Amino acid sequence: MIEETKEKDEVQFDEQHLRQLLENHETDNFREEFLALHPYDQAQFYEKVEPDIRQIIYQYLSPKEMADIFEAIELDDDEYKGILEEMDTTYAAQMLAAMYTDDAVDVLNELDKDQISHFLKIMDKDSAQEIKELLYYEEYTAGSIMTTEYVAIPENSTVRSAMTILRNAAPDAETIYYLFVVDDSNHLTGVVSLRDLIIAEEDTLIRQIMNDRVVSVSVTDDQEAVAQIMKDYNFLAVPVINSKNEMLGIITVDDIIDVIDEEASDDYSKLAGVSDMVTFDKSPFAAAKKRLPWLVVLLFLGMLTANLVDLFTGTLEKVAVLAAFIPLIGGTSGNSGTQALAVAVRGIATGDVEDESKMKLLLREAITGIITGVVCGVIAFGIVFFWKHMWLLGALVGAAICCSIFVATIAGSFIPLLMHRLKIDPAVASGPFITTLNDITSILIYLGIATMFISKLM
Amino acid sequence: MIEETKEKDEVQFDEQHLRQLLENHETDNFREEFLALHPYDQAQFYEKVEPDIRQIIYQYLSPKEMADIFEAIELDDDEYKGILEEMDTTYAAQMLAAMYTDDAVDVLNELDKDQISHFLKIMDKDSAQEIKELLYYEEYTAGSIMTTEYVAIPENSTVRSAMTILRNAAPDAETIYYLFVVDDSNHLTGVVSLRDLIIAEEDTLIRQIMNDRVVSVSVTDDQEAVAQIMKDYNFLAVPVINSKNEMLGIITVDDIIDVIDEEASDDYSKLAGVSDMVTFDKSPFAAAKKRLPWLVVLLFLGMLTANLVDLFTGTLEKVAVLAAFIPLIGGTSGNSGTQALAVAVRGIATGDVEDESKMKLLLREAITGIITGVVCGVIAFGIVFFWKHMWLLGALVGAAICCSIFVATIAGSFIPLLMHRLKIDPAVASGPFITTLNDITSILIYLGIATMFISKLM
Repeated sequence: MIEETKEKDEVQFDEQHLRQLLENHETDNFREEFLALHPYDQAQFYEKVEPDIRQIIYQYLSPKEMADIFEAIELDDDEYKGILEEMDTTYAAQMLAAMYTDDAVDVLNELDKDQISHFLKIMDKDSAQEIKELLYYEEYTAGSIMTTEYVAIPENSTVRSAMTILRNAAPDAETIYYLFVVDDSNHLTGVVSLRDLIIAEEDTLIRQIMNDRVVSVSVTDDQEAVAQIMKDYNFLAVPVINSKNEMLGIITVDDIIDVIDEEASDDYSKLAGVSDMVTFDKSPFAAAKKRLPWLVVLLFLGMLTANLVDLFTGTLEKVAVLAAFIPLIGGTSGNSGTQALAVAVRGIATGDVEDESKMKLLLREAITGIITGVVCGVIAFGIVFFWKHMWLLGALVGAAICCSIFVATIAGSFIPLLMHRLKIDPAVASGPFITTLNDITSILIYLGIATMFISKLM
Repeated sequence: MIEETKEKDEVQFDEQHLRQLLENHETDNFREEFLALHPYDQAQFYEKVEPDIRQIIYQYLSPKEMADIFEAIELDDDEYKGILEEMDTTYAAQMLAAMYTDDAVDVLNELDKDQISHFLKIMDKDSAQEIKELLYYEEYTAGSIMTTEYVAIPENSTVRSAMTILRNAAPDAETIYYLFVVDDSNHLTGVVSLRDLIIAEEDTLIRQIMNDRVVSVSVTDDQEAVAQIMKDYNFLAVPVINSKNEMLGIITVDDIIDVIDEEASDDYSKLAGVSDMVTFDKSPFAAAKKRLPWLVVLLFLGMLTANLVDLFTGTLEKVAVLAAFIPLIGGTSGNSGTQALAVAVRGIATGDVEDESKMKLLLREAITGIITGVVCGVIAFGIVFFWKHMWLLGALVGAAICCSIFVATIAGSFIPLLMHRLKIDPAVASGPFITTLNDITSILIYLGIATMFISKLM
């Protein structure tokens, strides 16, 4: 459904006007207009202007106001460093401290170790402590995307006192729409939605209206597992606990959307054989750098194919027409292998693979391979027979296509399953890799059979 | 990041126990335990049990309770019909009326026209009217995924009266975390978050605390454009308006997550050359049916390649070793074409392509093609030279690889851009299609050059 994509963003702000206010040093007017914008639009403006204009912005906005922009900003990973170096160090540290902890950690993760510890030293102790705790979690785990700004209430509070806690927490908490109920030792015991809270009587005890079957995730869970749970349950936020059931933080739906997006791009990139993400690079050198690793690896693998065909030079010299069908057979087997691979990789990604036995899956793919192989083989036989009027050549091409689709389909599903079992990311066995592998086997099958019947073909 | 996917869902309910309660007709115990579950878990249980058990469930649960399950259910599109036919018609109609309108419409869209109008006739008039309005919107538009259960408040209400409206709406509204401010003619004039509302003084006028720069989407917008806006602004819901700025409904973040998921799978399927979605099919026949259309189309295209190679039989008979490099050159050009294709398709999908001129993009891809082509060409020359000790053969293979990578890279980005311009879904020019096309051009380049230098090669 890509054909109709978003039109150019409706402009929500007047870039030229804002620029003028900055250049004319009209502080108050700039602040009034700029701060009325949604942080995303503020970030859009900030990303567009030149470094000298940004310097004026730093003078006019407080670190807290700058923090709102930084939470909405979308920079490439390697651009954060330069931007932070533009700012006064103390200003930058105050800004980081004012950001939601998870977002601050995302920014800090792009810096050198020295820079991180320098920033942590000069910011206030509480923020530094919170950031340090999150920095410690491994990438792609629940811990690495959670935030610590949530609203916790004691079990024995009333609805009235919970509302008071909520009002105080509202300016800082990342979401106030779920309240997490904890006991004296910070164990998670329940959850109350703000929806339930506002329709409850003021004197009701939280314990009476809370839901005590809380769905939570462990801090070491993979972010993709968290995404699955939030998708299934339609949560806006999910609590993160440690092995002792102590509440550590929450993960909000906006971060999960980013995870879903990232994971999908990641699978897509690997199927396309691009190292790193498929993105729009600003320079052709950056683009070439991402694409060359795969191309070169596949070039070497392709040399194996060449070597293999070379072994059959004797056969090809005798019946040169055989060469005509090499690309066809390799291509068809590559295509069916990629199809099987895509199904297996997505099945592993969505967890569908877990729901049934691997053997059953492979058996099903084998039957699929036989069906598609026979259909394509018969069609190929027909075309070659009518074109060349050589039934043996037709039978040979048809049989080779049938066999190689069968082998390619099994390989396309077996290899990712094997890699999954071995705890290797199955998407690494990307499209081009499987295709090259299937090239080799299909040519072996084709020229092998041809050599056996060479006397009849001449 | 697929390697560690979700573990088998932690069991949140005791399936055997619930089954027993149903079989022993312990109505009250079943209701107590079952209704304490999250609707997602209720749906999981409902999907697992057999038709005769489901009949008992219909007796024990009200249509409203069944509606909660149906909002959380995940069936294949063609399964809804059978399930609804299992139910008493009046019960089913009441259930559909009790569902959020957008979810009810999703279910109804899977039925025949006769069935739809029958259900609409027997349900209460208000629900039928709301459903009719949504049924009218085209698939993949904002209108088709919006819901009409939102909270609207008049501009001149106070915070206190808004809270009263909210409390009354809370049980039915799909989200109560944004309140949409409308004037007397239902024009959208502002938005207030519940967060702002609960920290405001009770006598404040809504007009004073509302945000009047509302970001909204048009009812005819593509769902992908809506997803982009919600991702950018981190909204939990976005209002949908018509061309007269009248408020029609809202789209909530949970529906947007489904859109993002769907669109990503769709692009992925097309890159893999599988018609319809890449999904786990239960039967190999269903799987073969999805894969065969592409395989057969590509088989015919592959015959063109065979035809082309066949034209060069004379050349190949003289220097059979040339055949050895056909798969290598075709493969390399196919790989670089798929890479360029993936970048362009994703760029179009995310809207990045709109931000710059198409010419600039093509120019950049051309330079990328030259860089990757030259690097791969030189490496190929080196390998062939050291292996075969024939510098001319090496130069030929190197030059052919260089040229065909260049052509493939340009074709890989030009074709999707052209299709986008022609309003055709560019993802249709899927991986295998581009690969086959590049196969043909690369072989033409390779065997063309070889034929030119045939006397030197012999």
